Amino acid sequence: MGRWVPGARGRLQRAAMELYAERGFEQTTVAEIAARAGVTERTFFRHFADKREVLFAGQEQLSELVVGALTDAPADLSPLDAAARAVEASAELFGERPDGPRARQAIIDAHPDLRERELIKLEGLAAVIAEGLLRRGVPTAAATLAASSAVAVFRMGFERWITDDGDDRGLEELIREALAELRAVTR
Amino acid sequence: MGRWVPGARGRLQRAAMELYAERGFEQTTVAEIAARAGVTERTFFRHFADKREVLFAGQEQLSELVVGALTDAPADLSPLDAAARAVEASAELFGERPDGPRARQAIIDAHPDLRERELIKLEGLAAVIAEGLLRRGVPTAAATLAASSAVAVFRMGFERWITDDGDDRGLEELIREALAELRAVTR
Repeated sequence: MGRWVPGARGRLQRAAMELYAERGFEQTTVAEIAARAGVTERTFFRHFADKREVLFAGQEQLSELVVGALTDAPADLSPLDAAARAVEASAELFGERPDGPRARQAIIDAHPDLRERELIKLEGLAAVIAEGLLRRGVPTAAATLAASSAVAVFRMGFERWITDDGDDRGLEELIREALAELRAVTR
Repeated sequence: MGRWVPGARGRLQRAAMELYAERGFEQTTVAEIAARAGVTERTFFRHFADKREVLFAGQEQLSELVVGALTDAPADLSPLDAAARAVEASAELFGERPDGPRARQAIIDAHPDLRERELIKLEGLAAVIAEGLLRRGVPTAAATLAASSAVAVFRMGFERWITDDGDDRGLEELIREALAELRAVTR
């Protein structure tokens, strides 16, 4: 077991993002990420399975935020509104400014294997939301459809958020806008 | 090409499905598939990139069916109804009985890398539908959301279809049922 270095995880994430931007994702090694973060390779592997996983490091917190939001959502909220609250809660994880998430997404979009991994993570997110809805007493079919709809509006909101088009609205608001559009489409 | 009488491609697909069922997906080699189909390995690779792709061989026909359905759909159909027509049209590809698709899905579900590939294919299906809707003059946001909704109802209908629960309804009907449920969830 490597030594527990306080803040190592955050430093590794920052170092990785810097290096991916500077020299490209493929060209960056775990050894370089660890060196820039001032830790050993062993410490890197205590925190991440590989250099891809650094890009998806927020997944666990994302699940926690989503589960928390579903637990806290008023009982009389419709399944879709509850699911939407869950993905809106994710905004907390991404911060105020889309610059970091935009840089991260550019790396993912440029690599088919990272795209695949991202799709798996989004599937996982939909599964976590569906399970949370089941716990709220929502029937399986409605839970599944509400969860996948919420992930679709999250993706649309997120994509708009990281698009540099002079629109300064926050992620939450853009997710809510996408939800309204989904409702218009399915009406 | 395109004849229903199985040529090498159809024989390879059938041989692969038999071998995957008999001895498992991992244990089956391309050489064995080719031998059972009575063709050379070289012929196998003329039709499929690898033994995974045999499981996703219908993707091109699926795209064609979907594009065709979107072209044929009445102009006054809503984006979601047009997208639903497109995924309903896919039923033709899967045949009357769910046994084959069920066996195929069991193999995919048992292998994470096949699940990843399947998610990519579903993403591709959503993209083809969205593009078809754009050609119908549907705005981008509505096209994207209608396409992802249609894929969600397709997945739900397909899953119910291959579940062996004594429900004899066809894939098309189950897709339409899922669409009605989606509408209820987003109302």
